[in-house]
Amino acid sequence: MGVVAALFVGLVALAIVSAQTGRRLVSLVVRGGIVVTMDGTRGVIEDGAVAVDGANIVAVDTAAAIGRQFQGGETIDASGQVVLPGLVNTHTHAPMVLYRGLADDLALMEWLTKYMFPAEAKTVSPDFVRAGTRLAALEMIRSGTTTYADMYYFEEEVARETKTAGLRGVLGQTIIGFPVADAKTPADALVRAEAFIASFKGDALITPAVAPHAIYTLDGSTLTAARTLARRHGVPTLIHLAETRDEVKIAQERFNATPVTYLERLGFLGPGVLAAHAIWVSDAEIALLRTRGVGVSHNPESNMKLASGMAPVTDYRAVDVAIGLGTDGAASNNDLDMFEAMRVASLLQKVRTGDPRALGATAALELATIGGARALGMASHIGSLEPGKYADLIIVGMTAARQTPMYDPVSHLVYTTRGDDVRTTIVSGRVLMRDGKVLSLDEAAVLAEARRWSVKVRAAVN
Amino acid sequence: MGVVAALFVGLVALAIVSAQTGRRLVSLVVRGGIVVTMDGTRGVIEDGAVAVDGANIVAVDTAAAIGRQFQGGETIDASGQVVLPGLVNTHTHAPMVLYRGLADDLALMEWLTKYMFPAEAKTVSPDFVRAGTRLAALEMIRSGTTTYADMYYFEEEVARETKTAGLRGVLGQTIIGFPVADAKTPADALVRAEAFIASFKGDALITPAVAPHAIYTLDGSTLTAARTLARRHGVPTLIHLAETRDEVKIAQERFNATPVTYLERLGFLGPGVLAAHAIWVSDAEIALLRTRGVGVSHNPESNMKLASGMAPVTDYRAVDVAIGLGTDGAASNNDLDMFEAMRVASLLQKVRTGDPRALGATAALELATIGGARALGMASHIGSLEPGKYADLIIVGMTAARQTPMYDPVSHLVYTTRGDDVRTTIVSGRVLMRDGKVLSLDEAAVLAEARRWSVKVRAAVN
Repeated sequence: MGVVAALFVGLVALAIVSAQTGRRLVSLVVRGGIVVTMDGTRGVIEDGAVAVDGANIVAVDTAAAIGRQFQGGETIDASGQVVLPGLVNTHTHAPMVLYRGLADDLALMEWLTKYMFPAEAKTVSPDFVRAGTRLAALEMIRSGTTTYADMYYFEEEVARETKTAGLRGVLGQTIIGFPVADAKTPADALVRAEAFIASFKGDALITPAVAPHAIYTLDGSTLTAARTLARRHGVPTLIHLAETRDEVKIAQERFNATPVTYLERLGFLGPGVLAAHAIWVSDAEIALLRTRGVGVSHNPESNMKLASGMAPVTDYRAVDVAIGLGTDGAASNNDLDMFEAMRVASLLQKVRTGDPRALGATAALELATIGGARALGMASHIGSLEPGKYADLIIVGMTAARQTPMYDPVSHLVYTTRGDDVRTTIVSGRVLMRDGKVLSLDEAAVLAEARRWSVKVRAAVN
Repeated sequence: MGVVAALFVGLVALAIVSAQTGRRLVSLVVRGGIVVTMDGTRGVIEDGAVAVDGANIVAVDTAAAIGRQFQGGETIDASGQVVLPGLVNTHTHAPMVLYRGLADDLALMEWLTKYMFPAEAKTVSPDFVRAGTRLAALEMIRSGTTTYADMYYFEEEVARETKTAGLRGVLGQTIIGFPVADAKTPADALVRAEAFIASFKGDALITPAVAPHAIYTLDGSTLTAARTLARRHGVPTLIHLAETRDEVKIAQERFNATPVTYLERLGFLGPGVLAAHAIWVSDAEIALLRTRGVGVSHNPESNMKLASGMAPVTDYRAVDVAIGLGTDGAASNNDLDMFEAMRVASLLQKVRTGDPRALGATAALELATIGGARALGMASHIGSLEPGKYADLIIVGMTAARQTPMYDPVSHLVYTTRGDDVRTTIVSGRVLMRDGKVLSLDEAAVLAEARRWSVKVRAAVN
């Protein structure tokens, strides 16, 4: 929704006041829980409430104050639960949930070239992508992710399924240097990417993006062409960068540069670029990424599982690089649970630096919310519970034995909560899951379809 | 149960054969799931079953073969689920669940001296220990732990509550060098430890143990006295060892030794010793621990959260040290979920070594089952599903979106399963939880009691 349209809806809504109570009628009030706002002060409201009208948050305050001012067309009682911004997953490959656990305990290059690329060559199709995206969306709704950044093939199918499921997506059509299911050449992929942008530009939920895969799977002219396309349309550019020591070695051999300095030489780096992983970087390169306004996506579980390395998250944060958190694809994680990503991010930075204060609970929650929003260039729209932002919020149960007792809700969100504790998920004011029941997808059908696909996938790698 | 008694029960049971079917009547048959045995061949039975009579497993086979031979007094249908040995948590401090999330993001020594020891001084009592143990037992039953090793105060209360809950415990009465709630001096603690051993020796579920806290909280003569006591009674000795760089520094300054060489000098090391953490050890010390028959408990989440370091798990495994997995107390984890401990253990070794094959899914599951059993000296009784062993087994759901599809049950157990997926928990043939309902504890009462205690705990550290 454009700014003008939002203002118009806001003015109409302002005009609707209950004759009986004198309170403003809004579409939804969430009340009674502990509200973790992640606003500028990182405010936590013990008995809080959020008033939502249409797609936007109109007020965040104590339950008493909201109750005096607003009457919800719908009301959700969050008592005994925690209300927080929907989580932002800054890097995944949604349809790869269909490859979850297909090949574990391998290094990235072997895993890619022996399993993932061959499996994709034999199974990726529009149908596969639709089925995979539905399964991924189901998992994300269930585990509290409301916005995700994606890089895959047939990204228009990812976009359609994402809209149907009701999630917000920054979705990048992949450009890669060898023939793949949706493009015989990088040139074909660039044409597809431009058509994809045209189809979804201005969409309320989908931000189309261009996703050149990596410096080791593309030549310099294609990288430049992809970046130029994104710049021309003012859309984000998603790329894997400095993920492994092997990538650094390749960059040295082919370009006599590091991955980051190579992209700088190409004029690639700038606002709107989201660099996934960015593990093997020097302090000077971190400073350069900051200067260029590049966002970073940290994917701790994937980086550990593939033994890629430990990203210098604390160093990025020290110089205020916009850094968020991602799960990576489920084939290397093996799930899309952002709560676990927060927890592992925190633990990994502590042990990496030898400092248990390195990335505390609040910092980890920042990565998964407002940090991810900043990395995606969307911090004015999502990432915190503040009036005017999209009503993307989740309600998390806090009564399991493993969550009892509770001294600090932020500690619990990071150190003991799992995605399965999410009870209610709301995007743009639409309730996608309510009290554990997913409303925007037919869960049984999605799971059955995924199981059918798994038979073909298994056959493809045998 | 002693060997003679078990044989007797076995013989009586053998005599009971159904007149109608010719099948042997046994107390319980679990059938229809994928059975992950963790036996010597790490056998996995696709459509398997386990026959249980009394406290023991009598057969593990295909569902068809078990169906031909056995008739269960009770039958549990595990279709679509995974049946595996109950998990073995080799290091925790159960009652500390009441301090869960009380103080995060601090280094071990600061966390201990500024928060944990003061909180304990003001709150630990027999009542506190009973309430905490009940909460911990609830969490362990819910998350599939069937045996746990514990070090705390008033360990006789831990033991009683553990028996009531139906869990198996290796429970160590703590000996520490300053006045604590249950002992004014280490000498008092030694007296308590001996009484504790006398009370629980020969118990079917409880193995009493002696738990000298650490080399930096005890003098040499007390360490020796504790070890002598354990040797005299033939019970395990549980100790924190080589957990932090600070501990190594203290050992150098006070004893001109490393933590391991100091204990060797005291004659402390030998079979029956379980060393928790054992992070800061040389290759020679790893070889020494192997020679002495010492078991090791690896606690990856606690070690990361407190920034203690990364234990050389692959090096221990390379020379066949008996090594298991632990959660540590919930105050430094912040939960008792052994599935997460497996996952983090695997991820941590991969990134530590730079080798994604370092600790694969099967190896991680070994740590949490048969490895832990070996570390506790109980491998002939628990840790795998084999005839003659105790019927300690769990049934895990595998149908969540994040577990779909499934190519390999062992991969899923390690990389996507959470404790909450455990549906049924059985110890010594007793069903403690059935299809998500805990039978041996009043869950609501346990949670309410824990919340009451949290008020006092909060007051104690303010």
